[in-house]
Amino acid sequence: MAKKVSKSGKSLAKIAKPMASEGKIIFMDYASSTPVREEVLEAMQPYFRLKFGNPSSLHSYGREAKLAIEEAKEKIAKTINASPEEIVFTSGSTESSVLAIRGVAKAKMQSGNHILSSAIEHDPVFSTCKSMVTEGFTLTTLLVDVDGLVSIADVRSKITPKTILLSVQHSNGEIGTIQHIEDIGRIAKEKSVTFHTDATFSYGWVPLDVRKMNVDLMSFDAHHCYGPKGIGALYVKSGIPIKPIFPNKDNLLRPGTLSIASIVGFAAAAEIAHKEMGKNQKNLARLQRMFIDYIEENIKFVKLNGHLTRRLPNNINFSFSGITGSELVKQLEENGIITSTCVDCRALEAIGVKGEKFTGSVRFTFGKDTTQDEAKKVAMKVMDLVERARKG
Amino acid sequence: MAKKVSKSGKSLAKIAKPMASEGKIIFMDYASSTPVREEVLEAMQPYFRLKFGNPSSLHSYGREAKLAIEEAKEKIAKTINASPEEIVFTSGSTESSVLAIRGVAKAKMQSGNHILSSAIEHDPVFSTCKSMVTEGFTLTTLLVDVDGLVSIADVRSKITPKTILLSVQHSNGEIGTIQHIEDIGRIAKEKSVTFHTDATFSYGWVPLDVRKMNVDLMSFDAHHCYGPKGIGALYVKSGIPIKPIFPNKDNLLRPGTLSIASIVGFAAAAEIAHKEMGKNQKNLARLQRMFIDYIEENIKFVKLNGHLTRRLPNNINFSFSGITGSELVKQLEENGIITSTCVDCRALEAIGVKGEKFTGSVRFTFGKDTTQDEAKKVAMKVMDLVERARKG
Repeated sequence: MAKKVSKSGKSLAKIAKPMASEGKIIFMDYASSTPVREEVLEAMQPYFRLKFGNPSSLHSYGREAKLAIEEAKEKIAKTINASPEEIVFTSGSTESSVLAIRGVAKAKMQSGNHILSSAIEHDPVFSTCKSMVTEGFTLTTLLVDVDGLVSIADVRSKITPKTILLSVQHSNGEIGTIQHIEDIGRIAKEKSVTFHTDATFSYGWVPLDVRKMNVDLMSFDAHHCYGPKGIGALYVKSGIPIKPIFPNKDNLLRPGTLSIASIVGFAAAAEIAHKEMGKNQKNLARLQRMFIDYIEENIKFVKLNGHLTRRLPNNINFSFSGITGSELVKQLEENGIITSTCVDCRALEAIGVKGEKFTGSVRFTFGKDTTQDEAKKVAMKVMDLVERARKG
Repeated sequence: MAKKVSKSGKSLAKIAKPMASEGKIIFMDYASSTPVREEVLEAMQPYFRLKFGNPSSLHSYGREAKLAIEEAKEKIAKTINASPEEIVFTSGSTESSVLAIRGVAKAKMQSGNHILSSAIEHDPVFSTCKSMVTEGFTLTTLLVDVDGLVSIADVRSKITPKTILLSVQHSNGEIGTIQHIEDIGRIAKEKSVTFHTDATFSYGWVPLDVRKMNVDLMSFDAHHCYGPKGIGALYVKSGIPIKPIFPNKDNLLRPGTLSIASIVGFAAAAEIAHKEMGKNQKNLARLQRMFIDYIEENIKFVKLNGHLTRRLPNNINFSFSGITGSELVKQLEENGIITSTCVDCRALEAIGVKGEKFTGSVRFTFGKDTTQDEAKKVAMKVMDLVERARKG
């Protein structure tokens, strides 16, 4: 990891890239976060010092900030086929999901108290759904199959007349499985159940069309697609009943001054990600296939976690018999390769990966600039380390 | 207002300052927001592209981010005489205040249900306290005197055995009055009532010592003291019972990935503001006195809103008989002077400024670099505009 300290961020940014490509560090944990793109940072810069107005001010500095937010909403709305007024900025996808679930549950509590969600939701959704039980709501958890997929039939059968909210993630951040959101959305619409999807790990990597998917609310953020951290969005379809979680006199869905620079950066990252999506998706899928094939052909007793084809193009998750995920991740890092093991292993447990045979997993998540050479090096090092561990 | 658009934020920042000092625009609404200091932005830069790790990752990139957060906590804790582990980062002081009030109320609901707060709290505190009433809590509002001060005797007499939380702001953002927080804190301590103060408008401008003030929780943020927007903090005294508002499996008081760059910027802004505080406070107070004297000596039928001496050194708030606040603010802007009128006029109403004689007010809030020349120009223009309005 780069230890050089310089006063200029720009020159440091220039140093960073050669380090990875020179083979010193190969970063393969882009699902945890991505660096801010240079173009995105450039777009943000004027909003720190020059255009520093508070959007709630009525004067020109305030109007300028408000305009920047409106432009950002427009750009982001376009990427998901929504209207600008359907975009609400938050401090990140955690807040987006809390707002979606708590906000809808509280707004609809007169019409029912049943919430339906999957077993492999990311913690903000999972824990918020659970917390609603202490406030008089009931929760039903949808199980998943060995590939991590929710059953459409199960969704239909678990909806009751009391069901007010259904929350199923678009994709899983650990195992990469992409749900049949369009089909689930159709059922939710038929049954008049408000439908939320957490698209944190999908946004900017695969196409998301909120109309086509029939989703009413969608959480996503900037830092998973080369935008800044600390800024997220919640898509809220026009007319969906929802209450703010931060009470305020103006009944705004989200009061408080967020970073205008970050909002502008989010929009810039969103635009670029969607412009490059086709190309990146194709490249990543090819790299992914190559990597999976190499591991499966060269290492015995491995298990690819998640669906083989319905998965995020940058996600690979393997369990290796005889070596724990955390051991292998640690050894990879000692060899200059950054990966991750499951922090919250609910997804792995839900698809049956636990017990003696496979303990934990290693997640490899590519970035837009990950090269074939890097993927090869990592796959070879994994083979080497697994072999050694099994011999020792 | 600057309309030039350049690709480089740095060069734009260089353009911005001359504009104000050349007399084109005089910005006197620094209570709404402040620009990010150049040194602060420099400190932030490496965390956008190079040091982009997620603090919850276990690898070196994650550890680096976590370390940066810990260092920032240490720096910020020092400025208020707290311990680093007593600092919780949030998306801004709005979230800090919601977390403080809702979090404490929910954690202490077994021991009582009474909340005590002042009539002139900033909206996040005011609205959150009010919202708790729908959840079984009772709320008593403390009135203020003509200067905007809460009565210590009133605080003492309104505390009941059911009182679990007292929330009184450190200073008022509109009228600048600074409360007797130390005395109020002493009563809260005596009566074992958890005490929260919203120091959004005070932090970085006047000294705040949480131990000396006997406060248990304190909300503040970065963008009111030359740091970035979208990042705030809540001081939570060790041992104070409080529940998170974003549920999470690890029972963190604040889960979710905030901007590390912003956290680092917050700490840098905090350090510089406190290093320069003595000097800035003295300069601002002198400028403030000069400005107030000029207005009171040269314009008849004016009223200074807020306390004459117990007030923020950069805040001046006047009502002018015969001209509404919003009219004057608009005319000042047409003359290149940015000020503000009350958006939420609760503070003015609470001190009795309403009705026929005085309608609204104009708030002038200086920045650290506001000059005597600027203050003079503004005061003269105010005199000129008020005279003309009264004649017309």
